[in-house]
Amino acid sequence: MSTYPLDRDGAADLDERSPLRARRDLFALPDGVVYLDGNSLGALPRGVAERMARVVTQEWGRDLIGSWNTADWVGLPRRVGARIAPLIGADAGDVHVGDSTTVTLFKTMVAASRLRPDRRVVVLEPTTFPTDGYVAQGVARTLGLELRWCDPADPAAALDEDVALLALTHVDFRSGAMFDLPGLTRAAHDVGALAQWDLCHSAGAVPVALMDADADVAVGCTYKYLNGGPGSPAYSWVHPRHQEAWDQPIPGWFGHAQPFDMEHAFTPAPGITRMASGTPSVLALSALDAALEVFDGVCLDDLRAVSLSLTDTFLALVDARLGDVFEVVTPREHARRGSQVALRHPAAYGVVQALAERGVVGDFRTPDVARFGFAPMYVTHVDVVDAVEHLVAVMSGEEHLRRAYDVRNPVT
Amino acid sequence: MSTYPLDRDGAADLDERSPLRARRDLFALPDGVVYLDGNSLGALPRGVAERMARVVTQEWGRDLIGSWNTADWVGLPRRVGARIAPLIGADAGDVHVGDSTTVTLFKTMVAASRLRPDRRVVVLEPTTFPTDGYVAQGVARTLGLELRWCDPADPAAALDEDVALLALTHVDFRSGAMFDLPGLTRAAHDVGALAQWDLCHSAGAVPVALMDADADVAVGCTYKYLNGGPGSPAYSWVHPRHQEAWDQPIPGWFGHAQPFDMEHAFTPAPGITRMASGTPSVLALSALDAALEVFDGVCLDDLRAVSLSLTDTFLALVDARLGDVFEVVTPREHARRGSQVALRHPAAYGVVQALAERGVVGDFRTPDVARFGFAPMYVTHVDVVDAVEHLVAVMSGEEHLRRAYDVRNPVT
Repeated sequence: MSTYPLDRDGAADLDERSPLRARRDLFALPDGVVYLDGNSLGALPRGVAERMARVVTQEWGRDLIGSWNTADWVGLPRRVGARIAPLIGADAGDVHVGDSTTVTLFKTMVAASRLRPDRRVVVLEPTTFPTDGYVAQGVARTLGLELRWCDPADPAAALDEDVALLALTHVDFRSGAMFDLPGLTRAAHDVGALAQWDLCHSAGAVPVALMDADADVAVGCTYKYLNGGPGSPAYSWVHPRHQEAWDQPIPGWFGHAQPFDMEHAFTPAPGITRMASGTPSVLALSALDAALEVFDGVCLDDLRAVSLSLTDTFLALVDARLGDVFEVVTPREHARRGSQVALRHPAAYGVVQALAERGVVGDFRTPDVARFGFAPMYVTHVDVVDAVEHLVAVMSGEEHLRRAYDVRNPVT
Repeated sequence: MSTYPLDRDGAADLDERSPLRARRDLFALPDGVVYLDGNSLGALPRGVAERMARVVTQEWGRDLIGSWNTADWVGLPRRVGARIAPLIGADAGDVHVGDSTTVTLFKTMVAASRLRPDRRVVVLEPTTFPTDGYVAQGVARTLGLELRWCDPADPAAALDEDVALLALTHVDFRSGAMFDLPGLTRAAHDVGALAQWDLCHSAGAVPVALMDADADVAVGCTYKYLNGGPGSPAYSWVHPRHQEAWDQPIPGWFGHAQPFDMEHAFTPAPGITRMASGTPSVLALSALDAALEVFDGVCLDDLRAVSLSLTDTFLALVDARLGDVFEVVTPREHARRGSQVALRHPAAYGVVQALAERGVVGDFRTPDVARFGFAPMYVTHVDVVDAVEHLVAVMSGEEHLRRAYDVRNPVT
């Protein structure tokens, strides 16, 4: 949908014709900022502030404990899960929302491993987001399993009949490279293993079709492309064929079949609800519920088309104007690209800082990557043109050399 | 501080002289409601709504990813922990806030058991809140431990040198009975076991002195007497002597010594921060942070004096006017009483429903308990007199017999 070389007018024309044009107005973006960090913390959907005010003052303050029933706080994890389901190709009743991504990964990795009790190996890849690796180490140590680190260029080569679980991240947090989810799921199944997908850096920007791919388990965070707010709760999906035997390690009353009977013995709830442990964060879930309204009726093919047009445009402009300055880390092939572009440069930290002072927000990933996320719901082609213009100015003015290295930014 | 029999004027006089008189104004309580369910969901502190609006529209919406640094979102778990510390007799740097109570209990039970690797028994008591039992069952199954259920009348009798951990709830969720925290901690230590305390139903209403008692581990929820909002995150405390060896089972990047170096290997952060797993819920923690301001400078002895005066008053009035109708389940002795009173009645469900229609909010606990919580920060002696007046009217008018049993209320 885009043409190169592209000027600001051409970009504005593309934005005008975008199928997602009206969606941008659903976000409260600050003036004068080009926000290319929605892959770390999504922008604020306008409906959230009003919803939070209502939850705090009316549901909590005025209606108090009664809101568990009258506002159906009990049903929030499932209601929010139902909003996420169409974005990941899942049925509405099969998605649970609750704990942090890390805790959710722990629960799913243990439960998935328990479905293959005669196998002792979990395969993951070494460039995965660190927490995925830390959790896997924790799971392996607790259950006495072995971790096997695969070659990111060929994860399937690490599979054999000792493998219980192949646990991969769909889109890499640093490079933006995307794995072939259906193909690697098939490869796992071919050796009798299960496939778990971390969707943190894909869902909401890249179409995901879990049921079509016959995947087994998926986990994702909601504060990146799903715009749920800082630290918003993660979701999990378990294929219906596994739900009855699904045995996650942290049983709690919200995952009990009859939570309010206060029974001594634990009987897991039917379906995905058994993923629940403790009382859900009603405030965080309510913000997320309101945030997800911006996706109502969105077409995943439109999301993907706009996302690719934005990253294509960015890559073409960087190639044309800064091709000798940056190494492009992100794959060029559409089939292997998520919704972000990573540029390598020895002074990447300074580049990101200098851009931020100009109102262009990307982020830095150690040791030498400047990362730019293109959330298709609100980033425009004009943003892309402006960002590259600033990037050219930073590099030609050597602004990036004037920033001291000080990594305190915890964004993923 | 109270006198019996007490009329409404006498109650108002007690309230006027209460050392916590000014604290009630810090809460946004609805008109016409006597709220005796703060042991399930605490009332709304006035400062929360404004804080949430600021966090959503400014920190998230305007400042976006930069707020991890500029608003110190990274430091929220420790800042909130430092506010809780004086309420539980802990040092400010030793309290972490993050996951749900259930998940936190899982982490602490596993880590505590790992401190006694040569012992295989965890002792808990059968009337504990169900989730504590479910989690313990999950931990025991995952680690191959044995659960031993003690006699609630004498938990120490279950202790011997096979016991790794004595895990008790300080105040019972149903009866309101309080264990001798220092004495049972000593009993655990006498056999070489550790003592873990669930403070869900005590902290914020009952003084807790963890360091003085030489306890080992504590976990508590924050949405009851700490008023953090529905499903607000739980806290954990670990005695400094155990922190260096503390090995919780869900390692995540927020518990890493250098989270933003994105290292492949997991190195736990020093101190209590290693209890962290994933990205914390900034919205939920911010609400809790604002909520805890109402406790600034509060004297725990004042909290206890007011709490006992309220429950004494309630018990005296129930004895005087309804002594033949209800069985009082809660201990009479101050040393064994938390901050709630439980009344047994075959139609307890109907009693609670009929009271609610009159604006007196307590709650029902299966099978036959009507539970009334007296949060000393905002419940008054006038509330107590009014509540008993309504209770008398309900019973004399047989209003409690006109409610069908329909348990959907998930409050703890």
